[in-house]
Amino acid sequence: MLFLQSASAIFMTVNPAGGKSLPLHHLGLRPETNAGYFMGTLSTLPFHRGAMNPAPAYADLCRRAREAALLDSTRNVLFWDMQTMMPPHGQALRTEQMALLAAEIHALRTDPAIGGLLEAVEAGPLVDDPLAPEAVNIRQWRKEFDRLTRIPADLQVALSRAATEGRAIWERARATGDWSLFAPQLTEMLSLRRQEAEAVGYAGEPYDALLDQYEPGMTVAVLSPLLEDLAAGLAPLAAETVDLPGASPDILARPVPPGRLEAFSRRVIADLGYDFNSGRLDASAHPFSMDIGPGDVRITSTLGHTSFGSCFFGCVHETGHALYSSGLPTAHWGEPMGTALSMGLHESQSRLWENWIARSPGFWKHYYAPLLETVGVFEDVDRADFHRALTSVRPGCIRIQADEMTYNLHVVLRFELERAMLRRELTVADIPAAWRERMKALLGVTVPDDASGPLQDIHWALGYIGYFPTYALGNIYAAQLFATVGQVFPDTEERFARGEFAFLLDWLRQNIHAQGGRYPAAALIERVTNKPPSATDLLHHLQKRYVRK
Amino acid sequence: MLFLQSASAIFMTVNPAGGKSLPLHHLGLRPETNAGYFMGTLSTLPFHRGAMNPAPAYADLCRRAREAALLDSTRNVLFWDMQTMMPPHGQALRTEQMALLAAEIHALRTDPAIGGLLEAVEAGPLVDDPLAPEAVNIRQWRKEFDRLTRIPADLQVALSRAATEGRAIWERARATGDWSLFAPQLTEMLSLRRQEAEAVGYAGEPYDALLDQYEPGMTVAVLSPLLEDLAAGLAPLAAETVDLPGASPDILARPVPPGRLEAFSRRVIADLGYDFNSGRLDASAHPFSMDIGPGDVRITSTLGHTSFGSCFFGCVHETGHALYSSGLPTAHWGEPMGTALSMGLHESQSRLWENWIARSPGFWKHYYAPLLETVGVFEDVDRADFHRALTSVRPGCIRIQADEMTYNLHVVLRFELERAMLRRELTVADIPAAWRERMKALLGVTVPDDASGPLQDIHWALGYIGYFPTYALGNIYAAQLFATVGQVFPDTEERFARGEFAFLLDWLRQNIHAQGGRYPAAALIERVTNKPPSATDLLHHLQKRYVRK
Repeated sequence: MLFLQSASAIFMTVNPAGGKSLPLHHLGLRPETNAGYFMGTLSTLPFHRGAMNPAPAYADLCRRAREAALLDSTRNVLFWDMQTMMPPHGQALRTEQMALLAAEIHALRTDPAIGGLLEAVEAGPLVDDPLAPEAVNIRQWRKEFDRLTRIPADLQVALSRAATEGRAIWERARATGDWSLFAPQLTEMLSLRRQEAEAVGYAGEPYDALLDQYEPGMTVAVLSPLLEDLAAGLAPLAAETVDLPGASPDILARPVPPGRLEAFSRRVIADLGYDFNSGRLDASAHPFSMDIGPGDVRITSTLGHTSFGSCFFGCVHETGHALYSSGLPTAHWGEPMGTALSMGLHESQSRLWENWIARSPGFWKHYYAPLLETVGVFEDVDRADFHRALTSVRPGCIRIQADEMTYNLHVVLRFELERAMLRRELTVADIPAAWRERMKALLGVTVPDDASGPLQDIHWALGYIGYFPTYALGNIYAAQLFATVGQVFPDTEERFARGEFAFLLDWLRQNIHAQGGRYPAAALIERVTNKPPSATDLLHHLQKRYVRK
Repeated sequence: MLFLQSASAIFMTVNPAGGKSLPLHHLGLRPETNAGYFMGTLSTLPFHRGAMNPAPAYADLCRRAREAALLDSTRNVLFWDMQTMMPPHGQALRTEQMALLAAEIHALRTDPAIGGLLEAVEAGPLVDDPLAPEAVNIRQWRKEFDRLTRIPADLQVALSRAATEGRAIWERARATGDWSLFAPQLTEMLSLRRQEAEAVGYAGEPYDALLDQYEPGMTVAVLSPLLEDLAAGLAPLAAETVDLPGASPDILARPVPPGRLEAFSRRVIADLGYDFNSGRLDASAHPFSMDIGPGDVRITSTLGHTSFGSCFFGCVHETGHALYSSGLPTAHWGEPMGTALSMGLHESQSRLWENWIARSPGFWKHYYAPLLETVGVFEDVDRADFHRALTSVRPGCIRIQADEMTYNLHVVLRFELERAMLRRELTVADIPAAWRERMKALLGVTVPDDASGPLQDIHWALGYIGYFPTYALGNIYAAQLFATVGQVFPDTEERFARGEFAFLLDWLRQNIHAQGGRYPAAALIERVTNKPPSATDLLHHLQKRYVRK
């Protein structure tokens, strides 16, 4: 067995039934952090009198979760540093540091002792309310523990190795545009992920087991019709919007002075609510946000580059992620209850700020003059033309360069193909042809080579199968949330035009961020918007913004 | 007991006698890193046929050391980030992250299994040569393990708590200049450190046990005469050099444009040999160097400030530390053999570059024109006057502002007083008066208040008793090394004047850096310079530079 006695024992009462307490103070861990919550919330709740008292078992699980979260947040610092600060020759050591932490985190989360603790708290119940934080945590811990411990150690090793090798092979394959280089690797990865799905279990089809990792609770049975509706609705819309006069994005190709663009971007994201005392903005090759933990959520963008769209919308997009992360309930940090569990919901927050706010006419009514003043470059461009350029539709081969509308079709294509591969309806060798055919059908685009086709994304190389749909779910959720915001605040555009954004952040904080991991994403969306997720609001938004009479 | 089964087991053969090997590859740790060394070096050596085979035991100890080193280097990334990048609100989380890693590292290094492994390798011997890396490592591991495990857990907790509280209390005491605020804390710390010394053991007096942590192998019996000679020799020198005409440091108080000063400093340290592909230079409140590991040794200085001396000499000083760290034998990274064990030797490298090179006339013969060109500010100052300002002697109250000569007397004073306290010859209450008296006697300086007296340094608050002498040892070692360099290369000044520094770095790399932890510092100095450490060369250097006829 690979299991170890967990190092977390040093932070815990050795004997949960009332043995000696270890020196938390010495370790700099404030004993009140979890215990205080525990005392305040649980001490008045009825305890189950079983073999193990569920209350100390629950506290033990909280401390274990918190320790793993501390190591995870440490790994996040290492990752952030690697992408932004680390000197080139530091890479080999960094790889070892991160692998060690990953192994320790895995050991903590699969410690067999967790099984006994979970049984104790499940026998409780500690609380009757299934939506109480304790109930949420226990459910999620059980799910995570079962999933991790059901994957055999040799499969875990093979998956990890395949991801490492996959990255390198994919890089070579993409550079040469040679699908046959990558195909054996993807075949192996598919096989491993299928084995994982079988080990973990699923309700409908193997894809569900993978999807659930990124979008807990979502299934193909729900997702597939959602994306079909979206694709069906988008086809006529896209046809109506392409190549409309005055909608040229070419002006956005003008080089912009990087320092000024950064200054403008910093001003905007501070206005949107990003707190530079609890984060920072740095340059990186690709924008990302890094939730290190309470008081430290950092973002990056392509600072230093001259492309307006990449840098500015990178900043706003990552700000959306960061606002969500920093709005999670800090009292439950490190627990599922304090965690953003759905990639789709996370993406909804970034897309909301990027597309619904920072591409809205009201937003630019407020910011166009400051843009011209700070950045210059567009003085000869009328505000309406600038806004049209920001909201133009141009179908293309590359997902990450896609416009707000056709982006969703890129996702639909990937979902179709990866699901078909997992169902053995397509082989890896079939993918290039299938890709070309679906790109033509969905987007009307001719793919010139595989580098601009199925080799463009790293996801499959790393084994991220089931991840792509969360991008489209993010758009669906965002649209539905924004439609609800529009009912609560009918004057959103006027508010944006006055530079008012706090009302929106407050609403999101309260309705989405503060809910933490309490609800599956779709359930939360339904609760907040009074209807289950559907493509309707997204299609309506796109029609309103893009179909110009 | 607090001891845990070490998480390091995941990286090791569970049964050293030949059981299953764990999936190193999966963890991203290259199995060849230590094993390759082990196979290459040890497989031809005679193995002891005892209860446990010493060769696998040695490999196990190497892997454990490497794992602890990986966590240590991770903590160093956290520390560096905290001092340079972290947003203010990230402090609470960072404290917890660092405390968790500290606890894990302590658990790894005190794992009782190490005791058995050490016995196995000591029973060997693996090698006959006591200077072979294996012998060096085994000796040092034994020393570390005994020291750590001899300190009772409650004393360890008390020391850690006292240091944390001590920092806060010292900050308040210094701000108000109130020694009585700090006195109880220091009394407690002295008592704890005395207990530690008794637990750990010592040859001569308790001070030896503390000194040995910072300067392994050094004892009061050796150190005390060395510092007495230094003080005795400095007294007449200082009297001769103070207030000589033309030696005013006032021109150095001119504000300098920070960006230009940074550009100049970057150019200089690159010339000295600092590799920006294996490190970086950032701004921090106080200069420091951070050895994260092979390929990643970072430095900071007071970039952004307008003080020439603080920023520039901070850069050069930390470059000296970084050049040493990056010259250690990487094949032994994480082992004592690959570690700079002596604080004094480390300080000798920083002082050498700062004082012997960057304050030499030859250096400024080369760099004065570039300084004027890049930084400006001193155009009206003659090069000789600038150099005199850089090498002026002005006794004062504050150690970190002291000149190259009187700095050593600040250290002598601290050594005298902390040793006397530990020997109970002085009480904590006696310190302010004793400080005033010794400052007057040694430096001729009147101390106006305790904030400028015994409250100026944080060391005692953190329990760093026995640390100060390593600063003077650094100067002594540097002087002795530089005198030897002068014998090997009689034209050092001419080389500096031509901007040639590689010859010196090469010599240091070969004679000092590449030796790693093989010798105690004093033994290495004797080996390289053909005489044991003495104050002679330092006094000679100071006389030559500062006593102007």
